[in-house]
Amino acid sequence: MEEKLRFRLATEKDLEQIVSLLADDLLGSQRERYEIPLPTSYIKAFEAITADPNNELVVADNGNEEVIGVLQITFTPYLTHQGGWRATIEGVRTSNSVRGKGVGSELIKFAIQRAKERGCHLVQLTTDKQRQDALRFYERLGFQATHEGMKLKL
Amino acid sequence: MEEKLRFRLATEKDLEQIVSLLADDLLGSQRERYEIPLPTSYIKAFEAITADPNNELVVADNGNEEVIGVLQITFTPYLTHQGGWRATIEGVRTSNSVRGKGVGSELIKFAIQRAKERGCHLVQLTTDKQRQDALRFYERLGFQATHEGMKLKL
Repeated sequence: MEEKLRFRLATEKDLEQIVSLLADDLLGSQRERYEIPLPTSYIKAFEAITADPNNELVVADNGNEEVIGVLQITFTPYLTHQGGWRATIEGVRTSNSVRGKGVGSELIKFAIQRAKERGCHLVQLTTDKQRQDALRFYERLGFQATHEGMKLKL
Repeated sequence: MEEKLRFRLATEKDLEQIVSLLADDLLGSQRERYEIPLPTSYIKAFEAITADPNNELVVADNGNEEVIGVLQITFTPYLTHQGGWRATIEGVRTSNSVRGKGVGSELIKFAIQRAKERGCHLVQLTTDKQRQDALRFYERLGFQATHEGMKLKL
Protein backbone atom coordinates (compact mmCIF):
# COMPACT_ATOMS: atom_id res chain seq x y z
CA MET A 1 0.00 0.00 0.00
CA GLU A 2 2.60 2.51 1.06
CA GLU A 3 4.71 2.34 -2.07
CA LYS A 4 1.93 4.30 -3.74
CA LEU A 5 1.63 6.87 -0.96
CA ARG A 6 1.15 10.34 -2.37
CA PHE A 7 0.28 13.78 -1.10
CA ARG A 8 -2.17 16.01 -2.87
CA LEU A 9 -4.71 18.76 -2.32
CA ALA A 10 -8.00 17.47 -0.94
CA THR A 11 -11.06 17.48 -3.18
CA GLU A 12 -14.70 17.47 -2.12
CA LYS A 13 -14.78 13.70 -2.77
CA ASP A 14 -12.33 13.26 0.12
CA LEU A 15 -14.36 15.23 2.61
CA GLU A 16 -16.28 12.39 4.27
CA GLN A 17 -13.10 10.41 4.77
CA ILE A 18 -11.32 13.46 6.22
CA VAL A 19 -14.08 14.16 8.74
CA SER A 20 -14.09 10.47 9.68
CA LEU A 21 -10.33 10.75 10.41
CA LEU A 22 -10.80 13.92 12.44
CA ALA A 23 -13.50 12.25 14.55
CA ASP A 24 -11.46 9.07 15.12
CA ASP A 25 -9.13 10.74 17.60
CA LEU A 26 -8.79 11.13 21.37
CA LEU A 27 -9.75 14.81 21.36
CA GLY A 28 -11.60 14.88 18.04
CA SER A 29 -14.15 12.31 19.18
CA GLN A 30 -15.41 14.84 21.72
CA ARG A 31 -15.85 17.71 19.31
CA GLU A 32 -16.49 16.42 15.78
CA ARG A 33 -19.75 15.11 14.34
CA TYR A 34 -19.20 12.44 11.74
CA GLU A 35 -22.46 11.44 10.10
CA ILE A 36 -23.60 10.99 6.52
CA PRO A 37 -24.67 13.30 5.01
CA LEU A 38 -22.04 15.50 6.63
CA PRO A 39 -23.18 18.47 8.70
CA THR A 40 -23.18 21.45 6.33
CA SER A 41 -20.70 23.31 8.55
CA TYR A 42 -17.95 20.99 7.28
CA ILE A 43 -18.90 21.60 3.67
CA LYS A 44 -18.92 25.38 4.14
CA ALA A 45 -15.52 25.29 5.84
CA PHE A 46 -14.14 23.11 3.04
CA GLU A 47 -15.35 25.61 0.47
CA ALA A 48 -13.80 28.52 2.40
CA ILE A 49 -10.47 26.70 2.69
CA THR A 50 -10.24 25.75 -0.97
CA ALA A 51 -11.31 29.23 -2.13
CA ASP A 52 -8.44 30.83 -0.19
CA PRO A 53 -5.08 30.85 -1.99
CA ASN A 54 -3.33 31.07 1.39
CA ASN A 55 -4.84 27.83 2.68
CA GLU A 56 -4.11 24.31 1.48
CA LEU A 57 -5.83 21.19 2.74
CA VAL A 58 -3.47 18.30 2.01
CA VAL A 59 -4.28 14.61 2.17
CA ALA A 60 -2.07 11.53 2.23
CA ASP A 61 -3.61 9.13 -0.28
CA ASN A 62 -2.68 5.42 -0.24
CA GLY A 63 -2.85 5.26 -4.04
CA ASN A 64 -6.43 3.95 -4.08
CA GLU A 65 -8.14 7.26 -3.27
CA GLU A 66 -8.19 6.23 0.38
CA VAL A 67 -7.33 9.12 2.70
CA ILE A 68 -4.87 7.95 5.36
CA GLY A 69 -3.71 11.36 6.55
CA VAL A 70 -4.66 15.01 6.49
CA LEU A 71 -3.38 18.42 7.50
CA GLN A 72 -4.03 22.05 6.69
CA ILE A 73 -1.37 24.63 5.87
CA THR A 74 -2.01 28.36 6.17
CA PHE A 75 0.47 30.76 4.55
CA THR A 76 0.49 34.16 6.24
CA PRO A 77 2.37 37.37 5.44
CA TYR A 78 3.62 39.21 8.52
CA LEU A 79 5.48 42.45 9.07
CA THR A 80 7.70 40.81 11.70
CA HIS A 81 11.01 39.25 10.63
CA GLN A 82 11.35 41.99 8.00
CA GLY A 83 8.09 41.13 6.33
CA GLY A 84 8.41 37.34 6.38
CA TRP A 85 5.81 34.73 5.45
CA ARG A 86 5.03 31.86 7.81
CA ALA A 87 3.37 28.52 7.30
CA THR A 88 1.07 27.30 10.05
CA ILE A 89 0.19 23.61 10.18
CA GLU A 90 -3.06 22.55 11.84
CA GLY A 91 -5.42 19.60 12.04
CA VAL A 92 -2.81 16.88 11.52
CA ARG A 93 -4.28 13.37 11.64
CA THR A 94 -3.26 9.99 10.31
CA SER A 95 -5.31 6.86 10.12
CA ASN A 96 -4.95 4.29 12.92
CA SER A 97 -4.49 1.72 10.13
CA VAL A 98 -1.06 3.16 9.28
CA ARG A 99 0.12 4.22 12.75
CA GLY A 100 3.87 3.89 13.18
CA LYS A 101 4.53 3.47 9.45
CA GLY A 102 5.96 6.94 8.86
CA VAL A 103 2.98 8.41 7.03
CA GLY A 104 2.71 11.27 9.54
CA SER A 105 6.40 12.14 9.17
CA GLU A 106 6.17 12.14 5.39
CA LEU A 107 3.05 14.30 5.55
CA ILE A 108 4.79 16.90 7.74
CA LYS A 109 7.86 16.81 5.48
CA PHE A 110 5.57 17.48 2.52
CA ALA A 111 4.11 20.49 4.35
CA ILE A 112 7.62 21.77 5.13
CA GLN A 113 8.48 21.46 1.45
CA ARG A 114 5.34 23.42 0.50
CA ALA A 115 6.36 26.12 3.00
CA LYS A 116 9.77 26.38 1.33
CA GLU A 117 8.18 26.60 -2.11
CA ARG A 118 6.01 29.44 -0.85
CA GLY A 119 9.05 31.31 0.47
CA CYS A 120 8.24 30.99 4.19
CA HIS A 121 11.00 31.53 6.73
CA LEU A 122 9.25 29.56 9.46
CA VAL A 123 6.86 26.65 9.92
CA GLN A 124 4.81 26.66 13.10
CA LEU A 125 2.16 24.61 14.82
CA THR A 126 0.69 24.13 18.24
CA THR A 127 0.10 20.78 19.86
CA ASP A 128 -2.10 20.10 22.86
CA LYS A 129 -0.02 19.41 25.98
CA GLN A 130 -2.20 16.32 26.47
CA ARG A 131 -0.60 14.84 23.32
CA GLN A 132 2.85 13.97 24.67
CA ASP A 133 3.59 11.59 21.79
CA ALA A 134 2.88 14.38 19.31
CA LEU A 135 5.37 16.68 21.05
CA ARG A 136 8.15 14.13 20.66
CA PHE A 137 7.08 13.40 17.08
CA TYR A 138 7.47 17.06 16.11
CA GLU A 139 10.76 17.39 18.01
CA ARG A 140 12.16 14.50 15.97
CA LEU A 141 11.20 16.43 12.84
CA GLY A 142 13.18 19.46 14.04
CA PHE A 143 10.50 21.59 15.66
CA GLN A 144 11.33 23.29 18.95
CA ALA A 145 8.80 24.04 21.69
CA THR A 146 10.06 27.59 22.19
CA HIS A 147 6.60 29.12 22.64
CA GLU A 148 3.52 28.72 24.76
CA GLY A 149 0.45 28.01 22.66
CA MET A 150 -2.37 30.01 24.22
CA LYS A 151 -6.06 29.58 23.45
CA LEU A 152 -9.18 31.49 24.41
CA LYS A 153 -12.56 29.92 23.67
CA LEU A 154 -15.26 32.35 22.62
CA MET B 1 -3.64 61.20 25.58
CA GLU B 2 -5.46 57.99 26.34
CA GLU B 3 -8.95 59.40 26.35
CA LYS B 4 -8.63 59.54 22.57
CA LEU B 5 -7.25 56.02 22.21
CA ARG B 6 -8.77 54.27 19.23
CA PHE B 7 -8.20 51.09 17.29
CA ARG B 8 -8.29 51.02 13.52
CA LEU B 9 -6.88 49.21 10.50
CA ALA B 10 -3.35 50.30 9.66
CA THR B 11 -2.74 52.37 6.56
CA GLU B 12 0.49 52.72 4.60
CA LYS B 13 1.09 56.04 6.38
CA ASP B 14 1.47 54.10 9.66
CA LEU B 15 4.03 51.67 8.33
CA GLU B 16 7.21 53.44 9.43
CA GLN B 17 5.87 53.85 12.96
CA ILE B 18 4.82 50.20 13.08
CA VAL B 19 8.23 48.94 12.00
CA SER B 20 9.84 51.27 14.54
CA LEU B 21 7.67 49.66 17.25
CA LEU B 22 8.55 46.14 16.09
CA ALA B 23 12.27 46.96 16.22
CA ASP B 24 12.06 48.56 19.68
CA ASP B 25 11.70 45.24 21.46
CA LEU B 26 13.90 42.68 23.22
CA LEU B 27 13.60 40.08 20.47
CA GLY B 28 12.62 42.39 17.63
CA SER B 29 15.81 44.42 17.92
CA GLN B 30 17.73 41.32 16.81
CA ARG B 31 15.66 40.60 13.74
CA GLU B 32 14.07 43.78 12.39
CA ARG B 33 15.69 46.48 10.27
CA TYR B 34 14.25 49.91 10.95
CA GLU B 35 15.67 52.46 8.54
CA ILE B 36 14.15 55.15 6.35
CA PRO B 37 13.27 54.49 3.61
CA LEU B 38 11.98 51.19 4.89
CA PRO B 39 13.37 47.99 3.40
CA THR B 40 10.99 47.01 0.59
CA SER B 41 10.30 43.65 2.23
CA TYR B 42 8.13 45.47 4.81
CA ILE B 43 6.20 47.30 2.12
CA LYS B 44 5.56 44.10 0.18
CA ALA B 45 4.37 42.32 3.33
CA PHE B 46 2.10 45.24 4.19
CA GLU B 47 0.55 45.08 0.73
CA ALA B 48 0.02 41.31 1.02
CA ILE B 49 -1.61 41.69 4.44
CA THR B 50 -3.99 44.45 3.43
CA ALA B 51 -4.94 42.67 0.17
CA ASP B 52 -6.04 39.57 2.10
CA PRO B 53 -9.58 39.71 3.51
CA ASN B 54 -8.57 37.15 6.15
CA ASN B 55 -5.81 39.33 7.59
CA GLU B 56 -6.20 42.57 9.53
CA LEU B 57 -3.35 44.74 10.73
CA VAL B 58 -4.71 46.77 13.64
CA VAL B 59 -3.07 49.77 15.27
CA ALA B 60 -3.75 51.56 18.54
CA ASP B 61 -3.75 55.26 17.71
CA ASN B 62 -3.40 57.86 20.45
CA GLY B 63 -5.79 60.21 18.65
CA ASN B 64 -3.02 62.19 16.96
CA GLU B 65 -2.14 59.60 14.31
CA GLU B 66 0.62 58.34 16.57
CA VAL B 67 0.83 54.55 16.60
CA ILE B 68 1.23 53.29 20.17
CA GLY B 69 0.35 49.66 19.57
CA VAL B 70 0.01 47.10 16.80
CA LEU B 71 -1.09 43.53 16.20
CA GLN B 72 -2.14 41.33 13.32
CA ILE B 73 -5.21 39.09 13.25
CA THR B 74 -5.55 36.19 10.83
CA PHE B 75 -8.98 34.60 10.37
CA THR B 76 -8.75 30.98 9.24
CA PRO B 77 -11.42 28.45 8.29
CA TYR B 78 -10.68 24.93 9.54
CA LEU B 79 -12.46 21.61 9.19
CA THR B 80 -11.79 20.81 12.85
CA HIS B 81 -14.38 21.76 15.47
CA GLN B 82 -17.13 21.04 12.92
CA GLY B 83 -15.75 23.54 10.43
CA GLY B 84 -14.96 26.36 12.81
CA TRP B 85 -13.10 29.59 12.13
CA ARG B 86 -10.23 30.69 14.35
CA ALA B 87 -8.54 34.02 14.89
CA THR B 88 -4.78 33.99 15.34
CA ILE B 89 -3.12 37.03 16.91
CA GLU B 90 0.52 37.74 16.09
CA GLY B 91 3.07 40.54 16.28
CA VAL B 92 1.62 42.27 19.35
CA ARG B 93 3.62 45.31 20.42
CA THR B 94 2.92 48.46 22.41
CA SER B 95 5.05 51.54 22.72
CA ASN B 96 7.34 51.83 25.74
CA SER B 97 5.83 55.30 26.21
CA VAL B 98 2.50 53.76 27.30
CA ARG B 99 3.74 50.67 29.13
CA GLY B 100 1.51 49.70 32.04
CA LYS B 101 -1.33 51.97 30.96
CA GLY B 102 -3.62 49.24 29.69
CA VAL B 103 -3.18 49.92 25.97
CA GLY B 104 -2.05 46.33 25.36
CA SER B 105 -5.08 44.90 27.17
CA GLU B 106 -7.46 47.12 25.23
CA LEU B 107 -5.78 46.17 21.98
CA ILE B 108 -6.19 42.44 22.70
CA LYS B 109 -9.80 42.98 23.75
CA PHE B 110 -10.38 44.76 20.44
CA ALA B 111 -8.95 41.76 18.60
CA ILE B 112 -11.18 39.40 20.60
CA GLN B 113 -14.16 41.52 19.62
CA ARG B 114 -13.15 41.35 15.95
CA ALA B 115 -12.87 37.56 16.27
CA LYS B 116 -16.42 37.41 17.63
CA GLU B 117 -17.68 39.62 14.81
CA ARG B 118 -16.10 37.26 12.31
CA GLY B 119 -17.79 34.25 13.93
CA CYS B 120 -14.65 32.61 15.30
CA HIS B 121 -14.98 30.00 18.06
CA LEU B 122 -11.42 30.44 19.27
CA VAL B 123 -8.70 33.06 19.55
CA GLN B 124 -5.15 31.77 19.64
CA LEU B 125 -1.62 33.08 19.83
CA THR B 126 1.83 31.89 20.73
CA THR B 127 4.20 33.72 23.00
CA ASP B 128 7.93 33.12 23.32
CA LYS B 129 8.76 31.34 26.58
CA GLN B 130 11.41 34.03 27.11
CA ARG B 131 8.58 36.56 27.54
CA GLN B 132 7.33 35.55 30.99
CA ASP B 133 5.52 38.86 31.48
CA ALA B 134 3.60 38.29 28.27
CA LEU B 135 2.45 34.86 29.43
CA ARG B 136 0.93 36.34 32.60
CA PHE B 137 -0.54 39.24 30.62
CA TYR B 138 -2.43 36.83 28.34
CA GLU B 139 -3.51 34.64 31.25
CA ARG B 140 -5.09 37.69 32.89
CA LEU B 141 -7.04 38.21 29.66
CA GLY B 142 -8.39 34.66 29.84
CA PHE B 143 -6.01 32.77 27.56
CA GLN B 144 -4.82 29.36 28.72
CA ALA B 145 -1.42 27.87 27.86
CA THR B 146 -2.88 24.49 26.92
CA HIS B 147 -0.59 23.96 23.93
CA GLU B 148 3.07 23.85 23.07
CA GLY B 149 3.97 26.42 20.42
CA MET B 150 6.46 24.71 18.12
CA LYS B 151 8.59 26.45 15.51
CA LEU B 152 10.89 25.24 12.77
CA LYS B 153 13.14 27.76 11.06
CA LEU B 154 13.66 27.15 7.34
